Amino acid sequence: KACHRAAVVAMDKNQSYWATIEADIEAYLKKSITIRPPVAVFEPMHHLTFASPRTKAPALCIAACELMGGDRDQAIAAASAVHLMHAAYYAHEHLPVTERPSHKPKIQHKFEPSIELLTGDGMVPFGLELLSRSMDVAKNNNPDKILRVIIEITRLTGSEGMVDGLYRELELNGSNIDTGIIEYVCKKKEGELHACGAACGAILGGGAEDEIEKLRKYGLYVGMIQGMQNGVGKDNKGMKEKIEKLKILALKELESLKGENDRANFEYG
Amino acid sequence: KACHRAAVVAMDKNQSYWATIEADIEAYLKKSITIRPPVAVFEPMHHLTFASPRTKAPALCIAACELMGGDRDQAIAAASAVHLMHAAYYAHEHLPVTERPSHKPKIQHKFEPSIELLTGDGMVPFGLELLSRSMDVAKNNNPDKILRVIIEITRLTGSEGMVDGLYRELELNGSNIDTGIIEYVCKKKEGELHACGAACGAILGGGAEDEIEKLRKYGLYVGMIQGMQNGVGKDNKGMKEKIEKLKILALKELESLKGENDRANFEYG
Repeated sequence: KACHRAAVVAMDKNQSYWATIEADIEAYLKKSITIRPPVAVFEPMHHLTFASPRTKAPALCIAACELMGGDRDQAIAAASAVHLMHAAYYAHEHLPVTERPSHKPKIQHKFEPSIELLTGDGMVPFGLELLSRSMDVAKNNNPDKILRVIIEITRLTGSEGMVDGLYRELELNGSNIDTGIIEYVCKKKEGELHACGAACGAILGGGAEDEIEKLRKYGLYVGMIQGMQNGVGKDNKGMKEKIEKLKILALKELESLKGENDRANFEYG
Repeated sequence: KACHRAAVVAMDKNQSYWATIEADIEAYLKKSITIRPPVAVFEPMHHLTFASPRTKAPALCIAACELMGGDRDQAIAAASAVHLMHAAYYAHEHLPVTERPSHKPKIQHKFEPSIELLTGDGMVPFGLELLSRSMDVAKNNNPDKILRVIIEITRLTGSEGMVDGLYRELELNGSNIDTGIIEYVCKKKEGELHACGAACGAILGGGAEDEIEKLRKYGLYVGMIQGMQNGVGKDNKGMKEKIEKLKILALKELESLKGENDRANFEYG
């Protein structure tokens, strides 16, 4: 474990550490989602994978794995799966469906709605397939760990996770800006996405149960802050105070993890 | 193994054997998808799970497992996941998206399109979660088997499986009734759905590699026949001859499996 921790700590600046992670995930996704037959399927999948805005959730997955002493290879498929879940939901969220709430910003569509619908449908299982297969590449990933991570990701993606958040978001419109709902949506969408990323990384990296839970909470707070700053909470003045509180909570979780140097490097604006 | 095979054979008639399987799957789905909080999510999920037409793919999963000497409990989560994949795609296939080909029959919608879209999104991971958790209930399901079945189901559901078939189906319309495309769509949709069901059951039941592949092929032919009789091939006169050929191929696969009594019971019109 010591050598991996040392490697993490040896990075000169936080930023360059996170930048290498982002670059590795990007390279892995590019390698995995080549434009291949059936081209009619993989061309839009490739497009939608890289068209969605990036989140910090996949990088958190790898950083958490490395913080727990694991290898980057062990978490790269899980990190990519986390991005694919986000990208698939982003595509579906922006489909031109008739009674879509009007406050939702319109985005550029390269493909027809039915193609983007199906492509999103294909991305979720594709991500889980990448993950299921990641056992073969990284020998430290035993099937029990992988199954646990699959359950984390299916729970995130399913009815009690992001889908719940997206449902609640439908209730918001010009006249309904209930901060309680906004907070709930930020928790269920960005919050749980980042919580899942961090927890999956911690599991794969061999973290103890309490470490997994601390990293999950850290991810939750970091993700909620993202949602409040850039997601549904954007432009809502009531969020500012909540964001400050969440920053304190996030730091507390990090502080309770052992290893001062690691924490300093791990911290993530 | 002998006692399970005997139990299969002891059923008086084929029909009652398949009926007990269907009833068990229905009961398992009802138990798993209760209407619970968040109700806004689980109510449409419950509805769409049971609103889609039934296929024989889940039952094939259980029958294949039992034919290989496995317990019904081992395959019930996989069978239910197979149904959930079908039901989710059925919901998405019938969403009122603007440029949907007009030949697609309209169906009754109980919920708004954005709700049915999200619900479909939730059903795929929910099915995979059921499956991932099925290790705990049935002790004979080791994580290696479960991971292999997850890969089977994600491949079915993903870009090289049903999504590919649904894409190609978009090319068909009033003026384009290319029988080659129809056959391809029947293979990718109903064919691979049933092939996957049968292969998953065979894997969980402890079948040898050649048995798994024979049952996969049997499922493929049975599913293609379904697609040609009731799916996109319906009303196309060119299908009749193909169906007869597929029936012969399906029987050949069954005949090459050992155990004459089992086969007789397994045969499925």
